[in-house]
Amino acid sequence: MTIAPRAPFARWLEETNDVTSIFLAASGREGLINLAGGLPDPSTYPVAEISAISARVVAEHGPEVLGYGPVPGLPDLRDRIAARLGGARLGLSRENILITSGGMQALELVGKALLDEGAVIATQSPAYLGALDAWRPRGPAYRPVFPDRNGFHAGAALAGARFCYMVPNFSNPTGKLVGEARRRELVAAAQATGAWLVEDDPYGALYYDGPRQPTMLEIAAEGHGGRYEGPVVYLGTFSKEIAPGLRIGWVAAAPEMIAALTLAKQGSDMCTSGLTQRVAIAALDEKLPERMLPGILDLYRARRDALAAAMATHLSGLFDWEVPVGGMFFWAVAKNPDFDSDALMKAALEAGVCVSPSRVFDPEGTCRRAIRLNFTLNPPALLEEGVKRLAKAARGMV
Amino acid sequence: MTIAPRAPFARWLEETNDVTSIFLAASGREGLINLAGGLPDPSTYPVAEISAISARVVAEHGPEVLGYGPVPGLPDLRDRIAARLGGARLGLSRENILITSGGMQALELVGKALLDEGAVIATQSPAYLGALDAWRPRGPAYRPVFPDRNGFHAGAALAGARFCYMVPNFSNPTGKLVGEARRRELVAAAQATGAWLVEDDPYGALYYDGPRQPTMLEIAAEGHGGRYEGPVVYLGTFSKEIAPGLRIGWVAAAPEMIAALTLAKQGSDMCTSGLTQRVAIAALDEKLPERMLPGILDLYRARRDALAAAMATHLSGLFDWEVPVGGMFFWAVAKNPDFDSDALMKAALEAGVCVSPSRVFDPEGTCRRAIRLNFTLNPPALLEEGVKRLAKAARGMV
Repeated sequence: MTIAPRAPFARWLEETNDVTSIFLAASGREGLINLAGGLPDPSTYPVAEISAISARVVAEHGPEVLGYGPVPGLPDLRDRIAARLGGARLGLSRENILITSGGMQALELVGKALLDEGAVIATQSPAYLGALDAWRPRGPAYRPVFPDRNGFHAGAALAGARFCYMVPNFSNPTGKLVGEARRRELVAAAQATGAWLVEDDPYGALYYDGPRQPTMLEIAAEGHGGRYEGPVVYLGTFSKEIAPGLRIGWVAAAPEMIAALTLAKQGSDMCTSGLTQRVAIAALDEKLPERMLPGILDLYRARRDALAAAMATHLSGLFDWEVPVGGMFFWAVAKNPDFDSDALMKAALEAGVCVSPSRVFDPEGTCRRAIRLNFTLNPPALLEEGVKRLAKAARGMV
Repeated sequence: MTIAPRAPFARWLEETNDVTSIFLAASGREGLINLAGGLPDPSTYPVAEISAISARVVAEHGPEVLGYGPVPGLPDLRDRIAARLGGARLGLSRENILITSGGMQALELVGKALLDEGAVIATQSPAYLGALDAWRPRGPAYRPVFPDRNGFHAGAALAGARFCYMVPNFSNPTGKLVGEARRRELVAAAQATGAWLVEDDPYGALYYDGPRQPTMLEIAAEGHGGRYEGPVVYLGTFSKEIAPGLRIGWVAAAPEMIAALTLAKQGSDMCTSGLTQRVAIAALDEKLPERMLPGILDLYRARRDALAAAMATHLSGLFDWEVPVGGMFFWAVAKNPDFDSDALMKAALEAGVCVSPSRVFDPEGTCRRAIRLNFTLNPPALLEEGVKRLAKAARGMV
């Protein structure tokens, strides 16, 4: 019998990032310190509470929890999220909310709803690796924009783009905060140019110092009255405030955008699990995020400070960085402009520590000068040991 | 301030199916009998068992259940599914299995991994509406194929296609069974042409009469030895055997295909909820599907027979159909070749019954002659009343 070669995979699969598999291959290694991921500390997960809640919601809402649910999510959860985000004050109601299977699905659906091949995404650069992964199958073109630089012009940045992608609260990977003035400029530019403004806010609750900035969603809705129909497409998640394993995220946006995203979701996974949605509803009603947050902030603030101290001791001669006021990451830029952070990643793995190289966060795949370090997963002693190993690996390269 | 028109949505959104929203709008109406969907009877859901299991798995596997999991799924679940599908006998192991967020996500990921714009899908026609929804954003071309017709040539059907899409066990929407001889021809044609053969099998457990046919996965793996590397991409789900609300499906395929689908899933939703995966593992270990299945088969067989009797009484002059030996649907083709089943759907909604018109299952969107009727959701008395209303609506159109 003739056996023909198999039909080819889609073209975008020729260009996927390779670090995920490198990390996975290394992840079983004993004693490896993982500073590469963006993981919460599992000790923060509310295991006993979720165990009790799960049993109760299945018993009380059996057919809803175990059946197919509405594509845009359970109305009770959409209502609660609209209220948490500002509710009537911002003109937000159920029809402004779509429930997603984690924050990643929200990114994927935005790409599906807005991108044709070659469509332009204006994005903070470097940008979240997961967003680049989500959009790669749609074949977009990227326009890197730099809201923290002098001379930034929001109108020029957004003109002609389908959307602008921002993580204003502690950007992944840089940990930078976009200030209120820039947020206002971006909202005005979205209104003036017609580009959608995608505000990805997984870290919005993780402010360790300083005043909380208004979200661009809030700015766009201010003084508007009526229902929210603005250009901001706001993405949230419970992965940092409750637990990632629920895989519950959401989009808050104009009803026409929610309708488009709902069609995209219908063809992606039909609906998010009613079980995990009902667990989220009960967790909100029990004020689990509010009860957990002070402890999480204390834990992560201390770890940020520990990583900052370790970096100051061991990495000062090699890298520059800013101490982030929130989020999960430090972004360290090598003083040497020709530094190769891919080579450092490999040397660091040999030395027993895992870090993320800058190339994978660059829409153009060229930046090799920086690394991202996570401080939320490991206790202070391991953070310091990880930085020591990293410094040794970096010195061995010079 | 200037307000520009918003940037456009992706082009595929101009062509989405409209029946889902018509059904949703009607679904709240009191007394409406829904014969349109493909829903299990919620009375079959194992509420007490899943309530107890949920509490236990969260308590016992807290960090795993509440954290991020591996992209391709929990190894324990991948192992159990490989074993259920045939295990070592068919050369299937963990690396042949990807866990998905329901069967719909499996379809979506297959599209992402295999389709570039204009790539050819050879599909049974009419075809599952959800598959057409899943693939629409990738812009494929369709080649309708008819394995139940005389003169069907599997090699010609598959040549040049990226993949062939089949629901051999009780096709959605037609309820037809593809016999073993045709299955063997399709597997041989996939090997000879290189086209992947996507075997979607959500109804494989729902045989009410007659012997179970071998899956194309089993045929492709027969006598092969070693690990499974064949052309069949098999899609399964727990939605019919446990409950849809878990949103757990899977793909069994060659490791190279699982690797491509895993990259696609990474950018779709990162991972499926560890909570629902652990519930599925415990449900399998407690043999919940095996314990539930006899009752489900008795229930649905009686309903199929009730719908068949009602149709024979009330629809004989208007439609032709075959009584399906399994699955969830009857496919009724109007005797009048110019029949308009979209008009019937609307008239039937007025008369208090909801049915699916054939157009939405036609990749080319033209077939208007048939309707799909579901028999699993409603008890016999409601099935008969629904058919009476349908017959009245159809007669009112002539």
